[in-house]
Formats: sequence, C-alpha cells, structure tokens
Amino acid sequence: MSHPEAAPERRGAGIVTLTTDFGTRSSYVGSMKGALLSVSPRLTLVDLTHEILPFDVGAAALLLEAAVPAFPPGVVHLAVVDPGVGGPRRPLVLFQGGRWFVGPDNGLFTSFLTDDAVLHAIDPGLAPGTLSATFHGRDLFAPLAARLAAGRPPERLGPAVPDPVRLAWPAPRREPGGVSGEVIQVDGFGNLVTNLRSADLAGLGPELAVEIAGLRMVGLNTTYAERTAGECLALLGSGGRLEIAVARGDAARTLGVGVGAGVRVLAAAPPRAPR
Amino acid sequence: MSHPEAAPERRGAGIVTLTTDFGTRSSYVGSMKGALLSVSPRLTLVDLTHEILPFDVGAAALLLEAAVPAFPPGVVHLAVVDPGVGGPRRPLVLFQGGRWFVGPDNGLFTSFLTDDAVLHAIDPGLAPGTLSATFHGRDLFAPLAARLAAGRPPERLGPAVPDPVRLAWPAPRREPGGVSGEVIQVDGFGNLVTNLRSADLAGLGPELAVEIAGLRMVGLNTTYAERTAGECLALLGSGGRLEIAVARGDAARTLGVGVGAGVRVLAAAPPRAPR
Amino acid sequence: MSHPEAAPERRGAGIVTLTTDFGTRSSYVGSMKGALLSVSPRLTLVDLTHEILPFDVGAAALLLEAAVPAFPPGVVHLAVVDPGVGGPRRPLVLFQGGRWFVGPDNGLFTSFLTDDAVLHAIDPGLAPGTLSATFHGRDLFAPLAARLAAGRPPERLGPAVPDPVRLAWPAPRREPGGVSGEVIQVDGFGNLVTNLRSADLAGLGPELAVEIAGLRMVGLNTTYAERTAGECLALLGSGGRLEIAVARGDAARTLGVGVGAGVRVLAAAPPRAPR
Repeated sequence: MSHPEAAPERRGAGIVTLTTDFGTRSSYVGSMKGALLSVSPRLTLVDLTHEILPFDVGAAALLLEAAVPAFPPGVVHLAVVDPGVGGPRRPLVLFQGGRWFVGPDNGLFTSFLTDDAVLHAIDPGLAPGTLSATFHGRDLFAPLAARLAAGRPPERLGPAVPDPVRLAWPAPRREPGGVSGEVIQVDGFGNLVTNLRSADLAGLGPELAVEIAGLRMVGLNTTYAERTAGECLALLGSGGRLEIAVARGDAARTLGVGVGAGVRVLAAAPPRAPR
Repeated sequence: MSHPEAAPERRGAGIVTLTTDFGTRSSYVGSMKGALLSVSPRLTLVDLTHEILPFDVGAAALLLEAAVPAFPPGVVHLAVVDPGVGGPRRPLVLFQGGRWFVGPDNGLFTSFLTDDAVLHAIDPGLAPGTLSATFHGRDLFAPLAARLAAGRPPERLGPAVPDPVRLAWPAPRREPGGVSGEVIQVDGFGNLVTNLRSADLAGLGPELAVEIAGLRMVGLNTTYAERTAGECLALLGSGGRLEIAVARGDAARTLGVGVGAGVRVLAAAPPRAPR
Repeated sequence: MSHPEAAPERRGAGIVTLTTDFGTRSSYVGSMKGALLSVSPRLTLVDLTHEILPFDVGAAALLLEAAVPAFPPGVVHLAVVDPGVGGPRRPLVLFQGGRWFVGPDNGLFTSFLTDDAVLHAIDPGLAPGTLSATFHGRDLFAPLAARLAAGRPPERLGPAVPDPVRLAWPAPRREPGGVSGEVIQVDGFGNLVTNLRSADLAGLGPELAVEIAGLRMVGLNTTYAERTAGECLALLGSGGRLEIAVARGDAARTLGVGVGAGVRVLAAAPPRAPR
C-alpha cells in the first residue's frame, strides 16, 4: 500500500475497535481478542458492539458510520459481520480519513468509501496459522488489524479493489411541499432514527411538520427535555439525523413502529392570525 | 479547582470507568469511548455497566455505591444516565475520597456527597467541539473525564455547587421489636438486595428472624453454600447489605417479588425450653 | 510454586481475561475489575463473557476450552462461576501450557488439567483485605490474578492439589457403522456445537451422513456459504467440533433442538448405480 496518504497517523496507534454479530455469550469474541493480543499484547481493544443481529450488515454499517468519527486518526476499525465467510466474498483492508478498516467486502464500510479511500483485498496467505473456513475474524482479520495497529504494515496485499460492495441506503424522496424518508434504526431508548438529515430539510421553511404513524408534530425540538414526560417530539439527533422520540419514554413502543416505518416532513402552514 | 485536597492521587491515573443507560447495541458507547480516546489515546477504559434501565438514575447510583470503593484512588468515574440532557440540570464534576466523578447533577453520585466532597459545575465552554443538545456524554462529559484522567485539570470550572441533587433512598424504619425496609435491587442471580445494613440490625439480639413475601427465615447465614439447593436464606452480602437469596437458585423468581418489596427483621423469640 | 516450568512466559504479561456468571447489569464485574486494578493499575483486562448462565460451570469450562488457546502465553485467565463460594470447595491456581488460571476448584479448568499442569490451593490469607464469605472473585481471586499478571508470584501458596475436580463431558459412543454424540453448546447464531471431533469421525470413510432431530444430511460442508440460505448443513467448526448449522439461519430454532440433543454420524451407503 504505497499510496502516499496511506501512512497511518500515529495518534490513535495501538487502538483497535471491534464490531461483530457474535453476541456476548459465546467464545468467539474472546477468540478474536486472543488473536489480536497474540500479535501485539499491548493493544487497546475497544468494543463498539457485539450485538448486531446475526448477519445484519446494514445495522453494523450504520453503527460504524455513527461511532467511527468520534475516534482519533490512526485507529484500526475491525468489523466482522460476515455471512459469506468461506465463500467468494473478498477480505478487505481500507484506508480512509486517516484510519484503517478491516473486514469482509460486503458493504460494512459503505459510509467510508469516499473518493480518497484506498482499498485492497487481503492476501489469505497473511493468516499467521491455519485459515479455518468459518472464522476469518480470528484467523485472518484480527491478525492483520493487530499488525496495522502496531504500526507494522503487511508485507504484501492482495490486488486493489476498484469495485467494493456498497449498501444502498433507502434514499429520501422529495415530494410536493416536503420530503419523505423512513426509520433506519431504533436505539436503546426506543428513539426512532431516520434516513433524513438536516440538509434534506433545508428549504422547507422555518416551520416544519413531521408525520409518522398517523401522528403530526409541528416544529422541531432541540432537546428531549423541552417536552414533558410522555410527549412525542422530533429533533435532529447527535448523529445529525432526524429522530422521533418520546420525552423520558420509548417512541418505538409508544407509536408501535420500527425500522422501515415511513416518515414525512412538510413545510407547515403558517399560523393563521386570529380573527 | 484549587482545593488543596483536589490534587488527584496518581495511583489510578489514566483509568476511566463508564456507567450509562445506553445499552450495548447502539453506537453511543462507542462514540463516548472515541471521545475519551481522542483526548488521551492511552487511557484504560473500564465498563461498569451500560445496561442501567433507561433513565433509572437510582439504579445507577446504587451500582456506583457498590462498585466504586473497589477501585484505587485517582480513577475518574464517568456516569451518564441523563434524562434531563439539554435542560437546566447542571453538568457536574466531583472530587471525593481521592477520586473524581463526572456526570449530570441528578443524584447519580448521592453516595459520595460527603462533607469533604468538592463540587463544581462544568463550564460548557470546555467542550472541545460543538456541544450537541442531546449527547453531553460524548461532547462534554467524556472530554473532561479524559483530561482529568490524563492528569490535566481543566483550565477553568463553573461555579461551586453547594446544593447538589441528592436521591432520597427509602430509609429503614424502626418498629417494635425490629426494623423494616425494602428490596432496592435484584442482581443477576435473582438475589434480593435490601436497604438494611448491619448497623440497622444491631441491638436486635443474637437471633434474628427475617420476613419477606409471607416467608419467615430464622437466623442469618454466612454463605449461600450453607443451605441445600433451593432453600431460602438471608445473609449480609458482599456490599454490606441484607440479602435474601435461594441457594443455587433465583430468589426473585422463587418468591415472586422484586424492587420495592417489603422486608422485616425481628428479634427472634428465644427457643422455648421443652416442657 | 518452585516448579521449574512455572515461571510465566512474559509475552502476555499484564493481561487478565475474565469469565463469570455475574451478568452485565450488576456491580459485581465492576467490583472485580476495581480489585484487579487496585493491585496493578496498568493491567489489560479482557472480558471473555459475563453471561454464563448462573452456576453453569460446564458452559464456562467449554468457553474457556475454545477461547484460551487463542491467547499468548503469560496471560492469566480468571474464571469465577462459583456456586460453592464460602463452602468447602478449594480456591485454585493452575499453571498449564505457559499460562495461569485462577478460580474455584469445581471443574472450570477441566480442559487444561493435563499431566504437566501444576496446581495449588490458594492460601486464603493472601486476600489483601477482609475476605467476604460470598464474593471471593473480588476479595481473593482477583487480587491473586492481578499479582500473577504483574509478574509478582504469591509469597506462599496452599498445598498442592493432586485431585482437582474434573467435569465428565458426555463421551462420544461408537456404534455399528458410526458414532453418536450430542449437542453441548448453542452459539449466538443458533449453530449446534457437538461433542464430536474430527478424530471421532476418522475411519467412517469418505462419505458421511449426519442425523439430528429426524433429519439426515449426507456429506460434510466446509463453509456455511456452500449452501443456499435456509438449508441445513454439517461441518467441522472453527473449534474443531462437528457443528450443525443453517446457512444464514438459526439451526436451533429451525430444528427445535438444543443442548443435549442426540446426533449420529454414520458411514453413508455408497450411491447406487442407476438401473
């Protein structure tokens, strides 16, 4: 990887984050951490989550999109949600924005596939031991991630990857007087995170109405605390996306909706002057 | 914080514990860890739990009370259970017993609000980037906690806080021949942890009877192992509180009770001499 | 521990893994980590799992068997699934294969009780503070594990343990034309992990048939990806055991079976020539 920008920043050196669908009850997370520490015992390992639903590549990609920007450059982000393990899917190493990503080429890193990204397949011969057919997280991805985090770039890489797999997020749709989108994530508080960002709402005027599940909310709030407990509200969340929430409550449960539910944002009619 | 006792002990320097209600499936824990490591990449991060039920400040306060004393001085304890984020509640930094606490002023640190505690509001201007309205854990609390742990006290603090929010624990009540209290926590084994401590049981004589859920147990046990599997027992647990347990079983399930259930401890009648 | 081979390898020095049935919602894990860091604040702590079902010593032993070999020598593996805490069960320190194990003598370390293993009881006097009757994880095991990881062997040990408790795994049984075993673990994907290893299948010929839950699969697969979504398959998993899986699905749910379910592997009849 002789790309001039590929030299890792050193600030976050020695840090590896982990994102998997392994769950927290089996031996798989431990095995992968053991493989990392076997290469470099002084690494700092940071769990993002191991509770992605099995094979839910899209949820993992969204989580990485939200969490990765908080980390310093030089960090290696290792993600293994890998339903195609052992099949033809390519193992991938990606350098983008001063940080590394290691995992299968199945769309996990979609949000980081920018024009300046440098992508290579991983040469399976880099596995330090026998490469099992079913656990590349332990046998291939973890050892490479550990080497990168320790500042030892791999001796060789597989071919450049010009056509990485990209997930097609549901796109916001313009419609007369507004924009429509959908819920793409439900967080642990039951907040409904949508695919609408502030840029999607620009031009709709100062007063907005948000419609979801037959409910209409006029105006965006800035914080959950502006409403009294139990009231629904809409706001731009900490990740920059439109969220529907219930103050001190659970919007998913209250509204009875989840991922995929439609949401519309409309320019609200200006309040009429009283007669 | 020029208080002479405010200089952190250095033994636990570089360690930050994390206690939140974020759950382990969303990006929020990862984002907060990224913010911590962006300030100081060599920190040791220790999860106490992220599975406090949403907004359950009381449960988080009890967990901190139980876990914090096991840590060495100099550690920074970061706790974010923050239903009032973005509202008027103050962000707080607390120095007590040689350790630091960082989080919202909503009672999380009640057990550590002793006479020698030094408390200051956090100046929101200390946030290194834009302060979102809904995620002070990432934007304000984590960066300050990281600075403290790295031995770099903040340049400035907000005003001293003379009146921090305190939680009112349910207090034990004296009654003729005994004391009554309640279950305040159910642990992962189903053990029922109460608000009664050994001091509350002093003066009741050598033989005690414990009543809960219509059941009467005579005598305290020292260990779970003293009873055969399935038997109920009462003992003073590792946190110094009266616990009701089922040997190798689940007391909450067996007795069908949980947090809030009443418990009474009475001086047991001396055994009658046989006629 | 003057055994000549007992000097710890230094490569994994400073690393302690943790395996418990404490769950992730209570203060117990935090307390144990605090006790570890109180002895040595620079340790690297690695959670294997805290979600062993309460008192399930067998599941913890299987998880250690699978995860421990991935770690470098010199690591200390601390495991506390301890239904007998406070009773007569011995606290144990074990040196085997260049690594340390610390925990109760109840079979947790069965897979590592090889001929070259060195075992000693732990002198309860080594607890740095008061030894509670119910939480040896915090008061006795963690401090010793931390000392070992920090390269400070204990000043004294209890007596050698010639007769550690061993778990009796269900053994594969030879039968005419094959071998029978059972499911011993269900992982987070619903894969059914059995007690049959590749050595148990040797001599059955090149074509095998696997029977479970009334289903018969002919031939072993190498990877999950070889079958189309929803199809059942059998393969030798990453831990070297026969597994039954459903491609991109959940075998436990699909087949309606779990731990204890019987499985048979038979030499498959050669395919008949068509008439």
